[in-house]
Amino acid sequence: MREIEGGVTAAKGFQAASCAAQIKYKDRQDMALIYSQVPCKSAGTFTTNVVKAAPVKWDRDQVRSGKDAQAIVVNAGIANACTGAEGMDYCRQTAEAACKALGIPEGSVLVASTGVIGMQLPIDKIVAGIRKMAGELEGTLEAGEAASRAIMTTDTKNKQVAVQLEIGERTVTIGGMCKGSGMIHPNMCTMLSFVTTDAAISKELLQEALREDVKDTYNMISVDGDTSTNDTVLLLANGMAGNQEIREKGPDYAAFVEALHLVNETLAKKMAGDGEGCTALFEVKVVGAESKEQAVCLAKSVITSSLTKAAIFGHDANWGRILCSMGYSGAQFDPEKVDLTFTSQAGSLKIVENGVALDYREEEATKILSQPEVTAIADIKMGGAKATAWGCDLTFDYVKINADYRS
Amino acid sequence: MREIEGGVTAAKGFQAASCAAQIKYKDRQDMALIYSQVPCKSAGTFTTNVVKAAPVKWDRDQVRSGKDAQAIVVNAGIANACTGAEGMDYCRQTAEAACKALGIPEGSVLVASTGVIGMQLPIDKIVAGIRKMAGELEGTLEAGEAASRAIMTTDTKNKQVAVQLEIGERTVTIGGMCKGSGMIHPNMCTMLSFVTTDAAISKELLQEALREDVKDTYNMISVDGDTSTNDTVLLLANGMAGNQEIREKGPDYAAFVEALHLVNETLAKKMAGDGEGCTALFEVKVVGAESKEQAVCLAKSVITSSLTKAAIFGHDANWGRILCSMGYSGAQFDPEKVDLTFTSQAGSLKIVENGVALDYREEEATKILSQPEVTAIADIKMGGAKATAWGCDLTFDYVKINADYRS
Repeated sequence: MREIEGGVTAAKGFQAASCAAQIKYKDRQDMALIYSQVPCKSAGTFTTNVVKAAPVKWDRDQVRSGKDAQAIVVNAGIANACTGAEGMDYCRQTAEAACKALGIPEGSVLVASTGVIGMQLPIDKIVAGIRKMAGELEGTLEAGEAASRAIMTTDTKNKQVAVQLEIGERTVTIGGMCKGSGMIHPNMCTMLSFVTTDAAISKELLQEALREDVKDTYNMISVDGDTSTNDTVLLLANGMAGNQEIREKGPDYAAFVEALHLVNETLAKKMAGDGEGCTALFEVKVVGAESKEQAVCLAKSVITSSLTKAAIFGHDANWGRILCSMGYSGAQFDPEKVDLTFTSQAGSLKIVENGVALDYREEEATKILSQPEVTAIADIKMGGAKATAWGCDLTFDYVKINADYRS
Repeated sequence: MREIEGGVTAAKGFQAASCAAQIKYKDRQDMALIYSQVPCKSAGTFTTNVVKAAPVKWDRDQVRSGKDAQAIVVNAGIANACTGAEGMDYCRQTAEAACKALGIPEGSVLVASTGVIGMQLPIDKIVAGIRKMAGELEGTLEAGEAASRAIMTTDTKNKQVAVQLEIGERTVTIGGMCKGSGMIHPNMCTMLSFVTTDAAISKELLQEALREDVKDTYNMISVDGDTSTNDTVLLLANGMAGNQEIREKGPDYAAFVEALHLVNETLAKKMAGDGEGCTALFEVKVVGAESKEQAVCLAKSVITSSLTKAAIFGHDANWGRILCSMGYSGAQFDPEKVDLTFTSQAGSLKIVENGVALDYREEEATKILSQPEVTAIADIKMGGAKATAWGCDLTFDYVKINADYRS
């Protein structure tokens, strides 16, 4: 397996286009279209929020229907959430316009939106954007990159990744792009992630591979603890790599899952590392746990603690806040057995052993915590299970961005 | 029932003192002593955090022992949490010093600490402070007020309240003080609250009254979602009002509970309104719920949402974030039935009906949201249950305070 350049257009047969539809942003592209030259198996995971945006309901129904998918229409600026029957009708109109413009079957278009909740989409602009993009589709890296930029909201960086692996004699490619910066606490959120592959794989295994992998990737990141109404991960597989279709859980499936995991984990970490206003990616590993569930619960509690996140911003080794947030996680453990270590590219330092502080130098800790990627490792010495979660620091800019997001 | 001036010294027989023990702060008082001239029944509720500070464990054992209590020693600056056996021993030494200095029985001293986690208490300074304070106890309003100032950490205001009611022919007084500004998400946190009363009441009913009332008061506030290691509410009743002892749940108990609720609710709201860096008290009422549990779950989810809190700071009627945070609360409801109203002293405005936005004027909403106390009312139209939670806005100063709290 190897990482290659590109994103959603890296796999064979996938094309992309983007345009400035002027939905909210006036000076940049804000719509993207992903298209496969042939029909695809589709898989998807969606927000668990009771308040589900219209496009989430639309895609869930499409993916469950079992029909092949061939295109995804995405807009940034308006989330099409809390928009009632009118919002659902706009999903239908969007899909219809794409079917017509692309000449593909009814029911083969998925839609996704991100932005402000509660506003209605300007459907005329959306339809005009689709018509324009349908005539400009390209399979180039540039087209994929432009698409990854067009779906950004408060993101500061576009996010894409692609990997290749061999299955049988064939080279299989998996590529993806995502956006997400605020309202990020996916349990499936305003996180949108689109992954394309030319692998041939059954719809059932495609869905299972995605469903299992989101637990360790997208669902392990948090920017602000707010699970969005729009979280969507869509995975399209068009089979154009020509490998023998993966229909059971053998070595081929394992290789595919490993590569998919790398794509998903990379995209998830890019979102956490580009959290609204953040200056650092904060990784928390819990090891020595009795069970995976316990490790997940503890790791997520630490990355969502406002006090811990503010301390990371301040490069302050305030380990008491980490222990505190583990303590209120709901998981049981013995605080007097916990070891805590900070690591980054500047070094590694154990600062707590068996629940009490070691005699470390604050300057050394601050040096380690002043890097753009910081890891805290908590060993709770109860067993062999572990989990990793990713978040970011809480900064002045997070407040600034969110105190006047709509204006 | 009527509100009167004062705090922990308002009820008969209670005295207080405070001093500058130089535990962490160099330029202010940082220790307080509360003392009753006669032994008291005690009740307490404590943090549910698995990581419990040493004084929490000490007080829990004392309250459960059934022994009468007569004094509470409090320090600010160091939390005595994550301090192992050494920290527990400092609780014992603190209590012993107070017993000796005050000439009261062993086992009658409760202790409480708030401040940085992981540092050891300077026990010599603590003991010296106790000796000094024991000689300076007074029952005056001024002594109570000075005590309420001495226990502050990042608080910007001291917090106290007192009420009087008639039970039988006797006037009963309940007074209290508290501190808490960050790491506030009590499930029973670095929240400390001390309530004193001269009511005569059995220990069982005193504990029950407190246990039930914290659910609707302290446990319904959140500043940052971080449940502290030190949350403590202590309630002392010395019987000096001379009422016939309340031993069953009749009208006298109901009157006492109502007055206790006013004290606890007032103190809880003062903490939420003085949340670290905050500019507004944010009250969330959920009405029309199927059950109290559902209403509590929804209300707490809204007050803990970082995005909603940032919007309140920005005076932005970003109602989508409120619906979103209700949606990920874990409670089930129909988003398309929700009505949402903002109220404050500047007026009242319904902005969402049946899940979609009404045609309101943003300027009108901004005017209402620019007040120091703002209420959001969500009607979910499922039943007759309701709950109220209190939080505050998320501001630049919250980040500033917590990025370098230890320095």
